[in-house]
This record gives sequence, structure tokens and C-alpha cells, in this order.
Amino acid sequence: MSDLALAVDVGGTKVAAALVAADGTVVERRVRPTAVSPDPEAVWRPVTELVAEVLAAGTGQVVGVGVGSAGPIHVPEGSISPVNIPAWRRFPLLHRLAELVPGVPARLAGDGICAAAGEHWRGAGQDVDDLLGIVVSTGVGGGLIQGGRLVAGPSGNAGHIGHVVVDLDGVPCPCGGRGCVEAMSSGPSMVAWALRTGWQAPVPAPTGVDLAAAARAGDPYANEAFQRAGRALAAGIVSTAAICDLSRVVIGGGVSAAHDLLFPPLRAAITEYGRLAFLQGIEVTTASLGNSAGLVGAAALVLAPEAYAGRGVASLT
Amino acid sequence: MSDLALAVDVGGTKVAAALVAADGTVVERRVRPTAVSPDPEAVWRPVTELVAEVLAAGTGQVVGVGVGSAGPIHVPEGSISPVNIPAWRRFPLLHRLAELVPGVPARLAGDGICAAAGEHWRGAGQDVDDLLGIVVSTGVGGGLIQGGRLVAGPSGNAGHIGHVVVDLDGVPCPCGGRGCVEAMSSGPSMVAWALRTGWQAPVPAPTGVDLAAAARAGDPYANEAFQRAGRALAAGIVSTAAICDLSRVVIGGGVSAAHDLLFPPLRAAITEYGRLAFLQGIEVTTASLGNSAGLVGAAALVLAPEAYAGRGVASLT
Repeated sequence: MSDLALAVDVGGTKVAAALVAADGTVVERRVRPTAVSPDPEAVWRPVTELVAEVLAAGTGQVVGVGVGSAGPIHVPEGSISPVNIPAWRRFPLLHRLAELVPGVPARLAGDGICAAAGEHWRGAGQDVDDLLGIVVSTGVGGGLIQGGRLVAGPSGNAGHIGHVVVDLDGVPCPCGGRGCVEAMSSGPSMVAWALRTGWQAPVPAPTGVDLAAAARAGDPYANEAFQRAGRALAAGIVSTAAICDLSRVVIGGGVSAAHDLLFPPLRAAITEYGRLAFLQGIEVTTASLGNSAGLVGAAALVLAPEAYAGRGVASLT
Repeated sequence: MSDLALAVDVGGTKVAAALVAADGTVVERRVRPTAVSPDPEAVWRPVTELVAEVLAAGTGQVVGVGVGSAGPIHVPEGSISPVNIPAWRRFPLLHRLAELVPGVPARLAGDGICAAAGEHWRGAGQDVDDLLGIVVSTGVGGGLIQGGRLVAGPSGNAGHIGHVVVDLDGVPCPCGGRGCVEAMSSGPSMVAWALRTGWQAPVPAPTGVDLAAAARAGDPYANEAFQRAGRALAAGIVSTAAICDLSRVVIGGGVSAAHDLLFPPLRAAITEYGRLAFLQGIEVTTASLGNSAGLVGAAALVLAPEAYAGRGVASLT
């Protein structure tokens, strides 16, 4: 029986749990919708059931609990206040999960950071030491690997590519600032821009999937939304590379499914912005772990702590 | 007699050398104009004389040679190709300097990186672990400290804040890209923008000093140039903080002498762009080591190697 991590990935719309082996294999993966309730315990109860199911189904020794969560997370206390789970404000998630599997290390990091760790540990970034992982979805998140180690920063928030400012006088961002990557490249931002510009959507509340379909069918507004999103993301990537000296960027999340639309303008703009020699070799690739990247990265926090459990990762032992 | 570093700072217009003590004290500092010649040896000769003067004047044991240089530098081979010293292309500076003081470690890093190391080791960043050092001058350079250690990146180019893209559709930058911080916030960029916009300069080839004087005298174009430079620098700082989770930014270089003009719009724009909680505590301060920051940081490469001599720093022992 091999050593396994219990991995948990908490998002605003769903919670996933799984057992993850040291080679990154995900077994007994289960997903539930995130409970909607003003009562923190009512949101917590289905998570305990999910974890119990996963633990009951698996065989092997659980040697640690790794958790990724939508932010903000509060590292010193291991608590979380996800924007889209209003009932949880400084909810002590790490302690609660650790109580379900006593006697083993438990660690917690932000979801973008876990996705980057997963892609570096067992995904599309295994062979490089300097990586930016990006998740383009409802928001734009990310995580940073430097010198082969996860860099979460003093507050656990490093790698926040979504809030890199690429347009000084740009559109307002949900964060309260303006001109952020997320304000141009997230799914909802792209849809909103296309609608504002003149896109005649086929359905009343179109999503990024509808926008991609329209772009593929030749709609110019939808196409331009992808062009603009790709350019904004490229500027954020080149900026990050200028600061951190990256060798690879791995892009996952729902919007990356439209890589046929997003990657050509993205790659062209990276070449346009990144002219210094050390910026010219940045490889951009799609994530290889799909929607398990966060679970695999959460597992890495406890299964490969020398690389993934440093500063900015909440830890109970 | 205390342990000293021979520190050398190579720029396109001048070369400085000094002995630096372990407490950061700079003694026997000498400066010469960088020789202008197509012959690499003719540029090198005055450097050897400068170093000989400094060594002859000092008392104490020289335990290492630390070098900062204008870039690009080539880390694996310890050579340099400074943009503004055309005679030196892959000039083996580190080996040459090491030969002048045999038997001790010799290390080389980029000048922006050395300035950041200096301010962190013995200047305005001594008390923090996560620092961006910026030099605003003819160009805009920088260096990064994370978790109390210098981060130079795999190629030795990390911390390049000047080429963070803050305006997607912005003006062309000397690097070949567009919308970079340097294209808006360097001294020459500010002057060029003010002249283009309508500034009636008092002299034929005005400098940043002339522009600052005009701004202080109430010229609206000159003032707007500082506003614009401050906003661009702020966007670059917030972007770097979003990626690296910074606690302090230390700004030096010639343009920072006009901090009365630059810092108010800079600080206001940092507040405007940086709205997420972890971005709200960024402190911005002026450098405290003045034009010795690069020499002090070069000394740190050899006097405090555990913090300042990692990956991306060329090293001979």
C-alpha cells in the first residue's frame, strides 16, 4: 500500500476531494456543489461527508492532508474567507480537516498556488525550475515556482497574475483597481466586453463557452474579445517574466479550453512585448492535469514538502 | 584590520571602485569616466588603474571581489556586454578583476540587482524580507529580494521592473517593446514626452534636472510628465507586488532626487491600483545609500554570500 495524501479543493461553486498518490495519480476523486447557506456549519457538513466517502473508498496509508482554497486565505491561522462563500469568514478549514485525519501533517494554500504546484510537480511544468501557472476562468489566478520551489510569499498571495496592471487607464476590475489582467482576460470580462462592443449573443446570459462558439463561427466581436484577452494576458506574462525570469508558463482553467482562440494572439503579443534576450524564450503551454491540478498540487504540499511547503503555506503538524 | 571587499561598479558613463567593510562602510571610493574606445583593452586599462589606486590606499584584508555592471551580463561565463560600452561584448570582466586580487572569491551581478542588494543589506530595506529595489535614471533598473535572499533568476535578470508592461498599447520602448515602465518613467522618457506635449525647455538638450526645475516652477507639461511617470512606476510596482508579495519598495537613481515631484503621484496611484488586502501595505521609500548602493551591494555578494550569492550571480572561487 502506497502513501497517499487526502487532497481537498474548495471553490465557490464546488468542493472536490481525492486521494493522491506520490506519483500524482488521483484516485477516489469526488465532487459536490458547495453548499449555499448563511450557516458556516451547514457549508462544512457536506465537506465532512465528502471526505469520509473518499477515505472509506481508498486503500493505502493517508500520510497528510493537503488543501487548496479560493481566497483570501489567512496563512498564520489556516483559515479562509472565500469571496464566493459568504458564510465562511476566517473559517478554520485547516484545523477542521486536520481533525478528520489526526496525527498527520496538514497544509493549506491558495487554489491558484496549488494548481501551479500540481503542474510543476506532476504536470506540464515538471522539467523546469521557473514557472508561472495561470488559471483563466471566472477570475484569473496563478502561482509561482522559482528555482524549483513554490513561492507563496509572506502572506501566501504571490503569483496573483490576475491583478497585474497592464493598462494604466484601463477598465475597472472586480478587485477595485483598474486595468488588471483579470479585467480583460477572465471569462466574464471577455463576455461583458463583447456584449458592450456589439456582440449579439444567442442566449440571454451567455458564458465564455458561448463566446468561444461565436468566435469560431466568425463573429468579429467575439473574436476581438479573445484577441484582447490574449494581449492582456501576454502583457501580464511578459511583466512577470521581466521580474521573475521565467522559463515556462502553464495555462489552465475553463477559458484555456478555447486555446485555439486564445493562444495565437497571446503568443504573438508575448513576442511583441518581450524583446529583451532573456524574455525571448518563454514557452507557453496548456495545463496537463485539467481540473485535477489543484488537487494534485494540494497533495504536493504534504507529499513533497521540501519543494512545496515553504513560507506562505499554512501548516499544522 | 577588518575584512574588506573590493567593490567595482561598471556603468556606461563611469566606473567606480571602493573598499567596503562588513558594516557597509565605503572607504577609498574612486570614480573615473568610462573610457570611450573601440578597443576593449583601452576601456579595461583605466579600470585596472582605478582598482590599483583603491587597493593601495586601503588598509585591511581584501577577502573578495564584488562587481556590479550595466547589462546585459552573461552569468555562466562572468562576462558583460553593456549596451553603452560597445567595445565590450562578452568581455570577461569577472576573470580580469579576479586576477587583480588572486585567491579570493569574485562575484558579478547586474547593477540594478546590486543596488537592491545594497539597500537590503545596509540601506533602506534592512528590516524587511521582501523588497523591490528600483533605480530610476537614464533607464529604469531593479532588483528583487524575497524571503531575505537576493533573487537574480536563472539568467541573472530578475527584477527588471523597467520592462514590466503597464500600457498595452503604449509608446515604443528602447527595448523594442511598448508600454514598458522605462518608456514612461526614465529621465529621458519623461523629457521626451514633455517636449512632445508642449514643454518649452530653457536649454537645447534638457535633462531630467531641467524638467524637475520646470515642474517646480509650475510648468504644467513638466508637472504632467512627473504625474505620468509616477503612475507608470506605480502600476509596475503594484504588478510586482501582485506577483511577489512585497513589503517594501526602495527607489534610488538620479530621478529619485525629484521625489517631491515623483512620489505624490506614485503613492496615490499605488493606492488606486493596489486594492487587494495584501497589496495595501506596500511601503515606498527613497534609497538611503545614494550612488554607493551598487558598490555596497557588489560587496554584499562576497561579504554576505548566504543571502546574496545564489543563482544568477556569476561566481569564481
